[in-house]
Amino acid sequence: MCQLLGMNANTPTDLVFSFTGFAHRGGATDEHADGFGVAFFEGRAARIFLDDQPASRSPVAGLVRSYPIRTLNAIAHIRKATHGRVALANCHPFSRELWGRHLVFAHNGSLAALPPAPGRRFRPVGDTDSETAFCHLAEHLAARFDERPDDEHLLDALVEAGEPLARHGTFNLLLGDGDVLVARASTNLCWVGRRHPFAHARLKDEDVTVDFSQLTTCNDRVAVVATSPLTTNEDWTPFEPGQWVMFRGGEPVAMRGR
Amino acid sequence: MCQLLGMNANTPTDLVFSFTGFAHRGGATDEHADGFGVAFFEGRAARIFLDDQPASRSPVAGLVRSYPIRTLNAIAHIRKATHGRVALANCHPFSRELWGRHLVFAHNGSLAALPPAPGRRFRPVGDTDSETAFCHLAEHLAARFDERPDDEHLLDALVEAGEPLARHGTFNLLLGDGDVLVARASTNLCWVGRRHPFAHARLKDEDVTVDFSQLTTCNDRVAVVATSPLTTNEDWTPFEPGQWVMFRGGEPVAMRGR
Repeated sequence: MCQLLGMNANTPTDLVFSFTGFAHRGGATDEHADGFGVAFFEGRAARIFLDDQPASRSPVAGLVRSYPIRTLNAIAHIRKATHGRVALANCHPFSRELWGRHLVFAHNGSLAALPPAPGRRFRPVGDTDSETAFCHLAEHLAARFDERPDDEHLLDALVEAGEPLARHGTFNLLLGDGDVLVARASTNLCWVGRRHPFAHARLKDEDVTVDFSQLTTCNDRVAVVATSPLTTNEDWTPFEPGQWVMFRGGEPVAMRGR
Repeated sequence: MCQLLGMNANTPTDLVFSFTGFAHRGGATDEHADGFGVAFFEGRAARIFLDDQPASRSPVAGLVRSYPIRTLNAIAHIRKATHGRVALANCHPFSRELWGRHLVFAHNGSLAALPPAPGRRFRPVGDTDSETAFCHLAEHLAARFDERPDDEHLLDALVEAGEPLARHGTFNLLLGDGDVLVARASTNLCWVGRRHPFAHARLKDEDVTVDFSQLTTCNDRVAVVATSPLTTNEDWTPFEPGQWVMFRGGEPVAMRGR
């Protein structure tokens, strides 16, 4: 299964998990060996690093490990190919421009017999169910709103478009637009909110290190969403099936579903 | 002034110039110190590496130097900010999905009093004249063709949309779609075609090295387009003002303008 990891913070934050550990899961300690990607937002623009090599061996992952990038929003994905070839065009996260900002999307799970994307405005470049689902979501948002709506209306529109897609299989997803991080779960997804003073985190994966030392003011908040908990001494909240959570400023601001 | 570099080949080619030399121009040997980017196509999908640090010091440029990526089409850009802040959102090349493929665009020059992009489908994420011009081009292509047209019609449509933009200033550009590389010049742009057996290239910039050793069959062809010649013993053909050239399979296949 693929691995998802998202971060949303209220102050520019060097990735609060060690990407080293996350990337280590890609081909070294388990089976996620078919590519990886990570998107860092700077304002409305996302910069995405992709590789179709296993994250554990990829020079691009090496760069990401050695080049700390501070951001309010990040989305990372390690791929185990289920639909679609191993190719760059099939590596998550996917990105499209909408409303003069980048939408970024990553998916975990399989969607069967998905209808083709309408293709009026957004068409898949690769051949995954995931990118097709993303095009459905983006098409719906573009048809509904000429400018970015407020958070509540944005989340409602995502639920409207996303729930019919979710009926095709497993639809764990992360979606970011530079301001918010939206997460939706079918099966495996959980999140934790952290605020100053941060407890020392005991790490589940020996290789994963978490460094919160840069988060020093009492107003700093960060939310981390992951396929499975990264630490053992924090209260990770599992998503309910069908639950949507929108994060802004490092905390949940809107929810739908159960 | 910014630097442009494009490559189009008929066989997957490790970048036939040393990116080391090109990147060295970004902040070390001259003034192009406001970021850089390079796009590598794999089929219809482009992978873009961007940084708003000078290319000579950027860890991302370091990655590109140390991780040879073979491609049929590449577009690179070193930025000297004239319009727009120094920010990732303003780093070339820019990319948009159209017709289920990535369009990639880089620009050298300044365009004054450009009308805003129509914004029906493509809107700038950053605040450069260059990205606005790209949105104009993409909007025109999307309005004209629901699927990618043949090369001649594609080039005609680019000329239709591009020449009115060029009247706003200096419009040296590179545009790729994974199959072709299109170049248009106002002032500084030149190209060279190479085919087996390749002559030993004498390099204009001491730091630039060119390695053609991987091009071994007699059918291999590669075209390189650059702001200024990279070598001193090859016949670089300067573009005429207003000239458009489309490259496919490592050679020019269509031209417009003078």
